[in-house]
Amino acid sequence: MGLLSKPIKTLDDLFVHTLQDIYYAEQQIVKALPKMIEKATDPQLKQAFQSHLGETKNHVTRVEQVFKMHGESAKAVTCPAIDGIISEAKEITADASDPEVLDAAALAAAQAVEHYEITRYGTLAAWARQLGRNDCATVLEQNLEEEKTADLKLTAIAEARVNRVAV
Amino acid sequence: MGLLSKPIKTLDDLFVHTLQDIYYAEQQIVKALPKMIEKATDPQLKQAFQSHLGETKNHVTRVEQVFKMHGESAKAVTCPAIDGIISEAKEITADASDPEVLDAAALAAAQAVEHYEITRYGTLAAWARQLGRNDCATVLEQNLEEEKTADLKLTAIAEARVNRVAV
Repeated sequence: MGLLSKPIKTLDDLFVHTLQDIYYAEQQIVKALPKMIEKATDPQLKQAFQSHLGETKNHVTRVEQVFKMHGESAKAVTCPAIDGIISEAKEITADASDPEVLDAAALAAAQAVEHYEITRYGTLAAWARQLGRNDCATVLEQNLEEEKTADLKLTAIAEARVNRVAV
Repeated sequence: MGLLSKPIKTLDDLFVHTLQDIYYAEQQIVKALPKMIEKATDPQLKQAFQSHLGETKNHVTRVEQVFKMHGESAKAVTCPAIDGIISEAKEITADASDPEVLDAAALAAAQAVEHYEITRYGTLAAWARQLGRNDCATVLEQNLEEEKTADLKLTAIAEARVNRVAV
């Protein structure tokens, strides 16, 4: 979540602020993924990143849709958590020369990103329902489900890598 | 994950670095939770934070145990992601005067912390197995399971709050 741009007095303020936070996060992920696609050496991982880039662009559009439904202009606020996760991912993948290590680091970083998004979309959908905005919750839950699926796909790739090494 | 203290050349380096990262994160959570317990107004939420403080102290001890099993001194590296999540939690709970908003913000922040830990322990346990250290993986998975349970408990509290408002 980002540094506060205005005081949070109501649940509605909190909802809008967190929407601005995830809007920022999704935009940063759209910027970061092409580099991850380029760097990943495992074909399955490369493919997972590629497919998630398309999904992430749709997530940005859905978040803009929720802003509109809620009568707010789409606006992003800086989020130190996602910035921290992404800067760490860049640093480690820049440093790793061994493809096995690079892929492991990229996979872990991507799962940290997914988990951040899962928790934020889960929260946003719950707050939307609390605010009586089931319509907004439904759209947010579409992003939530896709993030969960992306995380499960990454776990499956990670497990396949562990099993391959263990054989 | 933290800023790099030494180059990451092998999966073992990556494992140790991420262990240092979660060691730092757990320590920051031990420091942050008493303030959250004090601030939360929902008795169930206060109780959940209280019980998680005890668990978190055990997690620190288990991470120290894994360092020892792996022949490394316990050391923490700064992790911008957890710092971002915690500083945001402090900022929002300082700002919120309404108890409903404060509890909602504190709950969401705690779930973001849990998800960060879930992803890191999941990764660490997988890497431990890949490195042939099932003994370390077993200890890390104890922390992982407790973080998952804590997150589910927070989700149940969040859902109860939504239903209470919706009635």
